[in-house]
Amino acid sequence: MVNEKYYGYGTAPSVIRDLFAYGLEAAKKVGKENVYDYSLGNPSIPAPAKVNEKIKEYADGDSIALHGYSVAAGHEDVRQKLADNLNERFDVNAKASELFMTCGCAPALISTAKGIAADENSEFIVIAPYFPEYNIFFGAAGKVKVVPPDTEHFQINMPELAKAVNEKTVAVVINTPNNPSGVVYTRETLQKIGDFLKKKGEEFGHPIYILADEPYRELVYGGIEVPFIPTIYDNTIVCYSWSKSLSLPGERIGYVYVPEKCADGKKVYAAVAGAARELGQVCPPTLIQKVVGDCVGCMPDLEAYDVNRTLLYNSLIEYGYEVAKPDGAFYMFVKAPNGDANAYSEKAKLEHNLLVVPGDGFGCPGYFRLSYCVSKKTIEDSLPAFKAMIESYK
Amino acid sequence: MVNEKYYGYGTAPSVIRDLFAYGLEAAKKVGKENVYDYSLGNPSIPAPAKVNEKIKEYADGDSIALHGYSVAAGHEDVRQKLADNLNERFDVNAKASELFMTCGCAPALISTAKGIAADENSEFIVIAPYFPEYNIFFGAAGKVKVVPPDTEHFQINMPELAKAVNEKTVAVVINTPNNPSGVVYTRETLQKIGDFLKKKGEEFGHPIYILADEPYRELVYGGIEVPFIPTIYDNTIVCYSWSKSLSLPGERIGYVYVPEKCADGKKVYAAVAGAARELGQVCPPTLIQKVVGDCVGCMPDLEAYDVNRTLLYNSLIEYGYEVAKPDGAFYMFVKAPNGDANAYSEKAKLEHNLLVVPGDGFGCPGYFRLSYCVSKKTIEDSLPAFKAMIESYK
Repeated sequence: MVNEKYYGYGTAPSVIRDLFAYGLEAAKKVGKENVYDYSLGNPSIPAPAKVNEKIKEYADGDSIALHGYSVAAGHEDVRQKLADNLNERFDVNAKASELFMTCGCAPALISTAKGIAADENSEFIVIAPYFPEYNIFFGAAGKVKVVPPDTEHFQINMPELAKAVNEKTVAVVINTPNNPSGVVYTRETLQKIGDFLKKKGEEFGHPIYILADEPYRELVYGGIEVPFIPTIYDNTIVCYSWSKSLSLPGERIGYVYVPEKCADGKKVYAAVAGAARELGQVCPPTLIQKVVGDCVGCMPDLEAYDVNRTLLYNSLIEYGYEVAKPDGAFYMFVKAPNGDANAYSEKAKLEHNLLVVPGDGFGCPGYFRLSYCVSKKTIEDSLPAFKAMIESYK
Repeated sequence: MVNEKYYGYGTAPSVIRDLFAYGLEAAKKVGKENVYDYSLGNPSIPAPAKVNEKIKEYADGDSIALHGYSVAAGHEDVRQKLADNLNERFDVNAKASELFMTCGCAPALISTAKGIAADENSEFIVIAPYFPEYNIFFGAAGKVKVVPPDTEHFQINMPELAKAVNEKTVAVVINTPNNPSGVVYTRETLQKIGDFLKKKGEEFGHPIYILADEPYRELVYGGIEVPFIPTIYDNTIVCYSWSKSLSLPGERIGYVYVPEKCADGKKVYAAVAGAARELGQVCPPTLIQKVVGDCVGCMPDLEAYDVNRTLLYNSLIEYGYEVAKPDGAFYMFVKAPNGDANAYSEKAKLEHNLLVVPGDGFGCPGYFRLSYCVSKKTIEDSLPAFKAMIESYK
């Protein structure tokens, strides 16, 4: 009698969870220091000190005001701080009334998708490689269409994107810096997409939104630019969370930014709010809501990630691996030596307790993802395993 | 191009919000002390001191462990504490694996409804008077059927319930202590429903669940018993939150308890988890998750509510109002003197700045709800207005 779809969602095997569980078991046998777990995207740098200081400060204040309901969109003064920060950084004239805070980025994406999908035949285009949960998030609102990857530069395969767009398309989902590739889309790439969607929107007589999924915005290295897409293409809706930038993934706090200049901007905002209501989003958690308002200017201490990134990337290249250019997030996307990433992952696991995620679930077979949000020592200790692995294919 | 249903949800007028906004405006003109706002159900007693102490303690600890993802159901040690507490109080043999923590009670209810509804023709029965958001929560999973109220005792109209149950019924939603009536359903009432649903389940060859919505469980006065429904009827699923019991409504923390002894218990649990996944419930907020685990034995300081309740109830009865027996929650449900609660609400608002919510939205016209989670002074100062109002009808 249970709902079969949700039973399926609740029992679906997860490659990442299984690898992680394997690592925990292996650690019991061979010691934690001999397991090299690159499976999970859980931040390994602490939240900025200000975050925990503010938490304590608020906990000493008025409990009723602190823990009481806020309006569904989040406290207006908090949203104003977020808007001010966007305006400072990107000169976009954002307003508190354009921001709708949510319990993390996942409900932000789902609410937005449900708000803009006229019906269940509406199509969402995702670009491989992509975050596997997109199938569930956008499948909740409409149909998901996958654009095959550009495996040369891990930018966007424009001819394939052009083929995918049609009259039913409501949005193209853009995730930059990208999970799983770690690649940052260039201004040129984004400009091309914007121009193309503008033309197509005019042709079809309705807007095609860019839905920008931006939890990794601040995780970028070597001064690379991460263009703010609303400044390139008007019909852009941004979904954000502080999970990675403030290392707060468990606290579930994020937002949707619907610029009024978007086509039907105010209507879209109302529909996002309505969809959030049906997700049970009564309000974003109030304590952490206030804290991120105060810490919105804080930048994460990315040095540890950058050290890991450089060491791992340089070593892999030296050993002969092909790796997508990892300018952002804390992921690296590596070509499996003989093109079979599942076999590589299995062999690495069994022979070296080296845990890497095959790219199939990301829509990009033949590659594997490394989450380098681990200790530097793990990277150092794992290098012989990476070396032995590629040599075993020669 | 936006989704019309969600646009409707996002722009629907709210009687409660409108009254609240009226009160804020009126306060600017006549002073806050001359506005008697009984519209909102926002707790007016602070969280127990231990809650804020624990928040500070955790904020001093390991930031990565504190703010990192937990598993989707919530930390296992936290769930074990919740299970232990249920076992101590109700002798039910609850296990951590039967509890699924959520971002408040709203997603708990929606996930459960979606998990047990085989398809969108599945029917959920709600008992008037009921929380208006039920229409949205259960409407997300199936069809909502309303059982008219028992306006004699505000228990449950059994003949009407019997008429409502059919082969498509998947659950009867039971909210006790009740919002908006403040009434606690008796063991006798619950036993009657349990017996009836058992019989009907056998007749139809599938279980009919009781979905117990229990955010007000601990808000009960004068030693009245609030029976724990899983001890009366096996096929009961409980949705809970600490919004009211620990005065944490803004923090969004609650759970679903699916006893294994329920029909298809383990399957239902998995389906609830799957539905939660599609709501974007990645995990319950981690800091407050740990805090409620530590504070699960804390009882709210109900004296202030009880003082309000007694003063307001006795005064209204003295003036000649008919009031449902308010044994729990922080609501009182009052019969409009001439049977037109909308007219009463409007007149009270315009003539006395006395804000009361007409019962129509709760499925019970002719009554109005008072949320007495206000200061005692507000109650005292408002009494002449209540008196003048009823006298104006004589």
